[in-house]
Amino acid sequence: MADAGDSHIDLNADLGESFGVWQFGDDAAMLDMVTSANVACGFHAGDAATLARTCRAAVERGVAIGAQVGYQDLAGFGRRFIDVPPDELTADIIYQIGALQALAQAAGSTVRYVKPHGALYNAIVTNRVQARAVAQAVYTVDRELPVLGPAGSAFFAEAQELGLRTVSEAFADRAYRPDGQLVSRRERNAVLHDVDEIAERVATMVATGRVDAVDGSMIPVTVESVCIHGDSPGAVHIANAVRARLLKEGVELRPFV
Amino acid sequence: MADAGDSHIDLNADLGESFGVWQFGDDAAMLDMVTSANVACGFHAGDAATLARTCRAAVERGVAIGAQVGYQDLAGFGRRFIDVPPDELTADIIYQIGALQALAQAAGSTVRYVKPHGALYNAIVTNRVQARAVAQAVYTVDRELPVLGPAGSAFFAEAQELGLRTVSEAFADRAYRPDGQLVSRRERNAVLHDVDEIAERVATMVATGRVDAVDGSMIPVTVESVCIHGDSPGAVHIANAVRARLLKEGVELRPFV
Amino acid sequence: MADAGDSHIDLNADLGESFGVWQFGDDAAMLDMVTSANVACGFHAGDAATLARTCRAAVERGVAIGAQVGYQDLAGFGRRFIDVPPDELTADIIYQIGALQALAQAAGSTVRYVKPHGALYNAIVTNRVQARAVAQAVYTVDRELPVLGPAGSAFFAEAQELGLRTVSEAFADRAYRPDGQLVSRRERNAVLHDVDEIAERVATMVATGRVDAVDGSMIPVTVESVCIHGDSPGAVHIANAVRARLLKEGVELRPFV
Amino acid sequence: MADAGDSHIDLNADLGESFGVWQFGDDAAMLDMVTSANVACGFHAGDAATLARTCRAAVERGVAIGAQVGYQDLAGFGRRFIDVPPDELTADIIYQIGALQALAQAAGSTVRYVKPHGALYNAIVTNRVQARAVAQAVYTVDRELPVLGPAGSAFFAEAQELGLRTVSEAFADRAYRPDGQLVSRRERNAVLHDVDEIAERVATMVATGRVDAVDGSMIPVTVESVCIHGDSPGAVHIANAVRARLLKEGVELRPFV
Repeated sequence: MADAGDSHIDLNADLGESFGVWQFGDDAAMLDMVTSANVACGFHAGDAATLARTCRAAVERGVAIGAQVGYQDLAGFGRRFIDVPPDELTADIIYQIGALQALAQAAGSTVRYVKPHGALYNAIVTNRVQARAVAQAVYTVDRELPVLGPAGSAFFAEAQELGLRTVSEAFADRAYRPDGQLVSRRERNAVLHDVDEIAERVATMVATGRVDAVDGSMIPVTVESVCIHGDSPGAVHIANAVRARLLKEGVELRPFV
Repeated sequence: MADAGDSHIDLNADLGESFGVWQFGDDAAMLDMVTSANVACGFHAGDAATLARTCRAAVERGVAIGAQVGYQDLAGFGRRFIDVPPDELTADIIYQIGALQALAQAAGSTVRYVKPHGALYNAIVTNRVQARAVAQAVYTVDRELPVLGPAGSAFFAEAQELGLRTVSEAFADRAYRPDGQLVSRRERNAVLHDVDEIAERVATMVATGRVDAVDGSMIPVTVESVCIHGDSPGAVHIANAVRARLLKEGVELRPFV
Repeated sequence: MADAGDSHIDLNADLGESFGVWQFGDDAAMLDMVTSANVACGFHAGDAATLARTCRAAVERGVAIGAQVGYQDLAGFGRRFIDVPPDELTADIIYQIGALQALAQAAGSTVRYVKPHGALYNAIVTNRVQARAVAQAVYTVDRELPVLGPAGSAFFAEAQELGLRTVSEAFADRAYRPDGQLVSRRERNAVLHDVDEIAERVATMVATGRVDAVDGSMIPVTVESVCIHGDSPGAVHIANAVRARLLKEGVELRPFV
Repeated sequence: MADAGDSHIDLNADLGESFGVWQFGDDAAMLDMVTSANVACGFHAGDAATLARTCRAAVERGVAIGAQVGYQDLAGFGRRFIDVPPDELTADIIYQIGALQALAQAAGSTVRYVKPHGALYNAIVTNRVQARAVAQAVYTVDRELPVLGPAGSAFFAEAQELGLRTVSEAFADRAYRPDGQLVSRRERNAVLHDVDEIAERVATMVATGRVDAVDGSMIPVTVESVCIHGDSPGAVHIANAVRARLLKEGVELRPFV
């Protein structure tokens, strides 16, 4: 990203996370901002009709569709670690990717990448067994599918061992620990809210590959995509500000696939 | 089927209907008998790991895999009618086919047909709105996918209107009303249990295209596939007897696709 | 209600219908308006933690807690008819009442009535088998528990046969057919939105026992409680306006139990 | 238990763990053997109609009903740890106890104790936060309700701090580690299968308060109830043998409450 003449980045957000009558986030607005949509797959959120609508809306706007796979836990929104044995987890992930694939194809597109959600995302930073199970699932479905996630994770190590392309993301509105991991959502300062601060951080990340951690230190961050949370209060404003700032810096916004 | 020199038929059964620790039917034995496996898709039965195993077992034996789609109702095993609006039902069916498709591909095969399950199967004999919703889902996923079901149903009318191939099945062990519909499972005499009687009926169906209804009358029955219920007590014996009888009559057993 | 010197009415609303991260309605605001809270029981909405919070909030405000029982269908929010056999339905309703009873007691109160939700509410207006199953469930749990619902329904007939107290409600914001039934939510004009019109209608209902149907005719309506939908846009404004209007007319607002 | 003239013990088993069409274990046979039934509560197993039937069958045989509470995970049968935050877990447990309480009362009895199931049972041996959440739930519902579980657990420590009665159980057919904990079910030698060996072990446990661990050492085991797993192959034979052996030794079999 260092070469300003050729600078580009992907913006991704979690979408399709409504369920039945229950709305979550402002998908229509977010789809106007991002270049990649991590569409839920029904296990942590997203009934099939919601997913179908989300895929159609993404296709209309030229936004790339990714499968946002998670634990089977609607009550916990996939945010509670579940000790799923690896063969069950692999099957669960294949199932989810396939389900979304059919809906994406019905909308005229296809699933172009896979991103784990919530507690699964966090678990496979270090849990090698579950990391391998998820990587194996993606590989089994389509070895050309990239995975989107955190650099330096066990998940990326396992995915790379299988020859999968790994795409590193950074978070616009999440606080980082000095070791490069995210501050847990159960802690108070886990999520940033100041729009200008967030836009500034993202611009710095993209330009320099560095971000400031909670202890004030600057830490390296590998970033091919920036994740913008659609469920933050003010998510649309944040997305807008980040987008505007990046465009002002001359950064092209486009899907990584 | 009348020409003995070229007589052939498909035997299908519902499989993959275990869920987690809960076993249902004797899938391994049934897979040795049938030529087509209607594999559940997780909505009425079948967790992902079970479905993955079922697909692998079907592939090992050269049994064709079909998507057995149903209402989202584990507690009712898909046997309770649900008044699902058509757009939701279409999305639910696409989702289920896609999920199984990914698991079938992981097992080295592919979903080769679609068969509705339980209360959905029964509903779309006459419920035109849901019939169209299901047919539309299949058409959307792949217009080359045949649908397996009952001749003369609203489902077949809608499927044919979309240009889908419809494959008519008869039931080895279910009683027929004089109008050609099945006797409801909530009635006592809905299911036949005598193995020899069932084998005889099937042989007659395949040879003559006729079956005897509960009132003793012989009614016409169109049959390209014979459904053998894996959940009857003695299902394996029934399948065995039907299979032996058909082979004895010189009927070739092979998938319809 | 005719004697103005002693006029009183109950206001009820559906509450506790969030699920996990998904919010639904403005429970805190509605609890300041109503005298009875129909609290979901986890089958169509309401995870246990949400229900616990809702019960505590109701108790803090002196609002009576009722069990809002429904079909087991999160994806459809209990708004889709399910053909549940009566013994299963009775058990489902007992289960739900008991679950909420424990949470209500933990909050320092108790379940004081039962109200069916959504498609179940609509079904048992005419479906005698399901009506009896629900009435039987309430009777089994506690024959002193009143049921809240629509006058003239099969449900009330069955409940009265068992000796249960039936409490008739009218709807503030739902259109009525000339036969006294509600216009289906799938029709466009099912829900009223004009706040003043709604308040006026309710005041008339309470004072005269009559409401105007969609064809303009005035029809009789028995009303011991007025239901205010928390899920309408502007639900809080409607509740506020109805409440203010009734208080202005000198009608006392208090729970029916 | 040392005084043979007054020796008595409770036999408990997990029951009501079928779900819809899926059968699990032989509840009718087990109910003839045990003195306490740990009845599932719908979260890891047991639809409401199954639970209602199980409660009625227990009452008919004079078997005490306990609430077998677990994580909300049908696909995993409650055997996968879920990182549920404590306030959610407390509400989940209250909900489950209440639901079963209503069904037990409908059957003419009452919930007389609480026993955690599966991964929750295992977790709260050491997980103090979840242990406290479960104990708090029981205390909130009824501080007179005893809890059944493993001696020396964090769960018992938390329960005792709240003044709850704790009832220690031992396992007839599970292998013990030298530290007194159970060998994990994911290990091969976790479950014993030899009927005579199991009966002998139980008789020794009850008479001496000791059991032999997998390394051959004899370890102390506190036992007011012996758990017999209904899901082992041959569960009924095991129960029968244990029961016969204890009766032969002059031990009275009766509920601990």
